[in-house]
Amino acid sequence: MPPPRIALFLLTLQKKHLKMKKFAVILSGCGVYDGSEIHEAVMALYAIVKKGAIYDVYAPDIKQVHVIDHSKGQPMDQERNVMVESARIARGKISPLSKLNPADYDAIVLPGGFGAAKNLSTYAFDGAAMHVLPELEQVLRKMHELKRPIGAMCISPVILAKIFGKVEVTIGQDQGTAAHIESWGAKHKKTSHGEVTVDKTNMLVTTPCYMLDASVEDIARGAKAMVKAMLELM
Amino acid sequence: MPPPRIALFLLTLQKKHLKMKKFAVILSGCGVYDGSEIHEAVMALYAIVKKGAIYDVYAPDIKQVHVIDHSKGQPMDQERNVMVESARIARGKISPLSKLNPADYDAIVLPGGFGAAKNLSTYAFDGAAMHVLPELEQVLRKMHELKRPIGAMCISPVILAKIFGKVEVTIGQDQGTAAHIESWGAKHKKTSHGEVTVDKTNMLVTTPCYMLDASVEDIARGAKAMVKAMLELM
Repeated sequence: MPPPRIALFLLTLQKKHLKMKKFAVILSGCGVYDGSEIHEAVMALYAIVKKGAIYDVYAPDIKQVHVIDHSKGQPMDQERNVMVESARIARGKISPLSKLNPADYDAIVLPGGFGAAKNLSTYAFDGAAMHVLPELEQVLRKMHELKRPIGAMCISPVILAKIFGKVEVTIGQDQGTAAHIESWGAKHKKTSHGEVTVDKTNMLVTTPCYMLDASVEDIARGAKAMVKAMLELM
Repeated sequence: MPPPRIALFLLTLQKKHLKMKKFAVILSGCGVYDGSEIHEAVMALYAIVKKGAIYDVYAPDIKQVHVIDHSKGQPMDQERNVMVESARIARGKISPLSKLNPADYDAIVLPGGFGAAKNLSTYAFDGAAMHVLPELEQVLRKMHELKRPIGAMCISPVILAKIFGKVEVTIGQDQGTAAHIESWGAKHKKTSHGEVTVDKTNMLVTTPCYMLDASVEDIARGAKAMVKAMLELM
């Protein structure tokens, strides 16, 4: 006896869902000066969905280094938590980074913003002597061992260069940051709006976004190109 | 003597800029549960730029009604300012709503999120008995007098229906909200993902966004359709 139509439909849906590529997006707060750059984060989520993939959002359950009044660019006397603020971009659907099992995902994306250089690493304060949040380093090393793609936008590629050393990445055209990247043994490739650098050997895809003087349209193009290149690596 | 090439180029740029349509986007905070819905706000900015227009961002310089921990959906014991938080979405480039002169703009957009129903109006608390923030009502009435388009996403169309009465708007398919809208003498039109309702007489364009169970891709489609319809009204 053939299954009723509705069951067949549900089975098709389930099969389709199982075949969909699954991204983990790691945020670092909510706002360019002390967290994830919002346009980059949203455009990454959009590019993932538009390419027929799905995503889960993670962030470290830690205190933000500080809180910046984005209307003035000045620190505020307030404390905020990175995961709690990141949940604003994720519309509440978020998990602590400590729960991220790389084996469950086809790809990982790191949007940019100062959060990547303040909360996920100490790059904004320590430059070339920076260190990476241990729980993030562990996740990225595991994903790298699994030979699955990692995408990074804006300033986040410094994290990949610091951890993995001999890789190729881009942060656009900033010479100071490029020099730091090369001091770790990595290669920096100059790029412009919407371009990506693909390190096929190391499965890394990077794109400059707001490391250039960009518009939200450039960010959308960069995110789309990054996700496309990541899917091609799978 | 013909002007030097560079002057001609600058003149062309200036002329192009003068011809570009100018949108004012009014935010209500940063995050769906106590401010502007982030995906809607970003997709509105994206749609504006992608259609060759430009934008400025405004928000009222007032205290948020409350702060919601978006990872738990629970209120937090903290105070935040609507304009200061909105500046996160605007990457710092924001002005107080009191400085918005409707005559300077071709169009106004109100993204959604609970901020529209908590900070810009009291809809979340008072339902049909709600009132609208006086400085916002003043701006919207002036824009309406000027016969220039106003776009509203998600729950924000309630603000237009409350102020203008006999107009046609959509908030998607929620019967309770539709009943409130009709109680003010307005007409509610049912819509689905990415659709807009255009009230040509009153120059209002509305789209349901996250008032439906939507994805970020649906939001992008809705924002694009809204901006397109607004430009066609100019």
